[in-house]
Amino acid sequence: MEKWRATTNLRRSLKSILNRQLSSVSEFRYLNEKRSCQSSFNLIRDCKSLGQVNAIQHRCFSSASTLVQRNPSFSTLNSDDISYFKGLLGEKSVIQDEDRLETVNTDWMHKYKGSSKLLLLPRSTEEVAQILRYCNSRCLAVVPQGGNTGLVGGSVPVFDEVIVNVSSMNNIISFDKVSGILVCEAGCILENLISFLDNQGFIMPLDLGAKGSCQIGGNVSTNAGGLRLVRYGSLHGNVLGLEAVLANGDVLDMLGTLRKDNTGYDLKHLFIGSEGSLGIVTKVSILTPPKLSSVNIAFLACNDYSSCQKLLMEAKRKLGEILSAFEFLDTEAMNLVLHQLDGVRNPLPASMHNFYILIETTGSDESYNREKLEAFLLSSMEGGLISDGVLAQDINQASSFWRIREGVPEALMKAGAVYKYDLSLPVEKMYDLVDDMRIRLGDLATVVGYGHLGDGNLHLNVSAPEYDDKILEQIEPYVYEWTSKHRGSISAEHGLGLMKANKIYYSKSTETVQTMASIKKLLDPNGILNPYKVLPHSLNS
Amino acid sequence: MEKWRATTNLRRSLKSILNRQLSSVSEFRYLNEKRSCQSSFNLIRDCKSLGQVNAIQHRCFSSASTLVQRNPSFSTLNSDDISYFKGLLGEKSVIQDEDRLETVNTDWMHKYKGSSKLLLLPRSTEEVAQILRYCNSRCLAVVPQGGNTGLVGGSVPVFDEVIVNVSSMNNIISFDKVSGILVCEAGCILENLISFLDNQGFIMPLDLGAKGSCQIGGNVSTNAGGLRLVRYGSLHGNVLGLEAVLANGDVLDMLGTLRKDNTGYDLKHLFIGSEGSLGIVTKVSILTPPKLSSVNIAFLACNDYSSCQKLLMEAKRKLGEILSAFEFLDTEAMNLVLHQLDGVRNPLPASMHNFYILIETTGSDESYNREKLEAFLLSSMEGGLISDGVLAQDINQASSFWRIREGVPEALMKAGAVYKYDLSLPVEKMYDLVDDMRIRLGDLATVVGYGHLGDGNLHLNVSAPEYDDKILEQIEPYVYEWTSKHRGSISAEHGLGLMKANKIYYSKSTETVQTMASIKKLLDPNGILNPYKVLPHSLNS
Repeated sequence: MEKWRATTNLRRSLKSILNRQLSSVSEFRYLNEKRSCQSSFNLIRDCKSLGQVNAIQHRCFSSASTLVQRNPSFSTLNSDDISYFKGLLGEKSVIQDEDRLETVNTDWMHKYKGSSKLLLLPRSTEEVAQILRYCNSRCLAVVPQGGNTGLVGGSVPVFDEVIVNVSSMNNIISFDKVSGILVCEAGCILENLISFLDNQGFIMPLDLGAKGSCQIGGNVSTNAGGLRLVRYGSLHGNVLGLEAVLANGDVLDMLGTLRKDNTGYDLKHLFIGSEGSLGIVTKVSILTPPKLSSVNIAFLACNDYSSCQKLLMEAKRKLGEILSAFEFLDTEAMNLVLHQLDGVRNPLPASMHNFYILIETTGSDESYNREKLEAFLLSSMEGGLISDGVLAQDINQASSFWRIREGVPEALMKAGAVYKYDLSLPVEKMYDLVDDMRIRLGDLATVVGYGHLGDGNLHLNVSAPEYDDKILEQIEPYVYEWTSKHRGSISAEHGLGLMKANKIYYSKSTETVQTMASIKKLLDPNGILNPYKVLPHSLNS
Repeated sequence: MEKWRATTNLRRSLKSILNRQLSSVSEFRYLNEKRSCQSSFNLIRDCKSLGQVNAIQHRCFSSASTLVQRNPSFSTLNSDDISYFKGLLGEKSVIQDEDRLETVNTDWMHKYKGSSKLLLLPRSTEEVAQILRYCNSRCLAVVPQGGNTGLVGGSVPVFDEVIVNVSSMNNIISFDKVSGILVCEAGCILENLISFLDNQGFIMPLDLGAKGSCQIGGNVSTNAGGLRLVRYGSLHGNVLGLEAVLANGDVLDMLGTLRKDNTGYDLKHLFIGSEGSLGIVTKVSILTPPKLSSVNIAFLACNDYSSCQKLLMEAKRKLGEILSAFEFLDTEAMNLVLHQLDGVRNPLPASMHNFYILIETTGSDESYNREKLEAFLLSSMEGGLISDGVLAQDINQASSFWRIREGVPEALMKAGAVYKYDLSLPVEKMYDLVDDMRIRLGDLATVVGYGHLGDGNLHLNVSAPEYDDKILEQIEPYVYEWTSKHRGSISAEHGLGLMKANKIYYSKSTETVQTMASIKKLLDPNGILNPYKVLPHSLNS
């Protein structure tokens, strides 16, 4: 029991979290360099060598093959188009340089790669509107792009779409310290907004590993989840207003800064999470919570999944308003981290446990919150829910706990081939899928379960020495069918993009998808905005 | 300073809030009996006496006249229709009795009254679907109805629309104690859900004065705000899933129970706040927070509005995670309450103050939260933000504080004629409108400001001995124009309904309203669902 040691005025405030996230940004960039789906690459190159790119078979070992045909109704760029854009934006914002195009044509995992010949960098909503008005009239397809940190091939071209990147629209427009409402342009990098707010005594209600690169327009367009969702909820609750440009160049000014506004349909929600396929988000108004000074982090062990669930229930009730993260990993995930990553050690080394839980609390009173967490941990241990545990005493310990949880993806990549699934499932069913997969795969592969237990978000990963179609056949479509049967989501936070557009029916009914397609048709009749993404290709003509 | 007295183990838990809300329900019903807009009534009767109801001029002293024409493309009911519905639903669920029709044709304020000849009481989603499929094929207009507690004429017919009331669909389908996710049918009365959850150790994330009558389907369809919004946010954040029936009878199953689901457009948000004009909500999935045991309430005085704002900022920061209400009223509102309501006394009687603030905290630790609130109040008083204040010592005191804030509408009604406006405005500008109205009206009337300061929601009321067009001319369109100029909302929480359908442009841009109308046309091509409501009549043909 001596592990529940009291802290000695560490004054950690939010530094521990910030430090942790900075380190995760470098991991993110590191992974960026290392990861690739070579087979997919080769196929893309093969197609290109034929001189024409009209069909691309995206082959990735984490998913079945997808054959996409270029929509023949789209025009191809000509010199008049280039002249028009140069007249509109100026030479410097119309990019045809091959090296720069290489970067924006490729996603950060190097898994998806388009062949766009044109990158446009508008500086204002009016410029975005004129670009889209022109592209729509010419039937030129467009990919909206921000920080290009998406994981499902949503932010790069599939073929020769014009890339409209909003990075140059990065002004903070206003911040109201009374209400905590921030209004800014879509190209603001999330980390810059976090820094700006930190000086004002506020925080962003979302935070991601990719915050050093991702932009708020992209965060909103993909309904990014991230680390603070369990406390502050989704962007549908926090985004108060948006400005978006439709395919025909019409600007929808929905940039309200009000917590309450019941005047007609709340159209902004259509643009939150539609991955740029209904319009380009150009400005965002968002409610930001005040920065709280006290952060505490505990790393715990549970003997079984049932105890993890009960602990979550107890934490919600007893930690209530100060709970800010409830993450879990299983013993297979812990083993991988300990074996694959340098300098990581098990904070609970006495014996291996079946499950590990990371709990974070954030509040406005250091000593009280610490006491509250300690009391909760004591009662949970006495009640048999926790078999062991340790409470971080300083920033380094806190960071080392987060390093274990956040190191799982990196450890999986280092261990060999990995099949990755990002699923939402009812918490009580979540781990059954991991068990079922273990039975199905036997000795063929190692099945690893970890994720955001507090949000019902499981990262199911299958690790094997090398990619093998026999393994994939055991996983898919079984994992999607299992998820569908339990009314889960096949994409908890990453979106559908190109990767899962054809998988939508596993999570959505036919009538719902038909209604989505009719709304797409209504708002973008020519289908120029982010084609081949989100909706099934059969409906996305 | 002796007013900050310590409580003696009151164990109030949530009882004080529950008691307060029960009393406000009776007030609600009381007002229901007393209120009427006689002039509007007379006009409706005059039209009826002509034998045909094809145009109704809704005249209400809080708004300019509105002339509505019956849409001639709608059919009128015939005996075949009645036979069809009796075959579908059974005799008992097809109501033609005049007394029962009188009730469902009339809104609770007795301000709006339709002349429907048919009330249908479906018991299942499939019955709702078949009703709508039939009505759509026959071009019979429909009003979806729940508890009929709306304030803008949205839940009663304008002419002879068929009333589809979902009260009989009132089953709780499931409750997950791990995640706190409740799934239920649309006709569940909010108070019943609150009671059900109370037994499970959870609360609804919304609470309203009308909770004894209003239903969750109507709450969702009108995006109800209420007393807990400052803490738990809007229904767009808390509703996880919906089932809705479209005008053509198609059922959209969006009844997810997941906190994270990024698989396509999140269509449920279209039905939250669209006042039944896009579909009938039949089931709801909602995230419910755990019940916390400690509630404290303080009643404070501030010398100026600037201090109220600063106090709000400080409260958000220092009370942070336990702040659950921040309400305000001005001295004119307090005077009215003290003069018009029996048994109400000023808890700060030493002198009259310019502004009064009610702060409520809710947390998981009685003694700590009490200490935290006391420390905040002491520092605010020392900092000069508060000129006086008192902390409730028991349930009776807590109820008496809430009685003052919640008694303002009743006091206004008793004082004579009242022109009522429910506005969202940036907090820093909010009270300028009250000051401006006082200058405009001079001695003509008393201007009263109160509301949910924590949500930026002002209830602006103008009280006069009797209704007078000269007063109305001074208020409208000035108040709407002022709100529009400051990017406010002319309906913070009540919706647009029939009352403000033509006022939408004060809060929404032309392009946005056009897009709303195109979505209405897409989902309800014949316009049968809740016609004449929400969208401007010029677009709502």
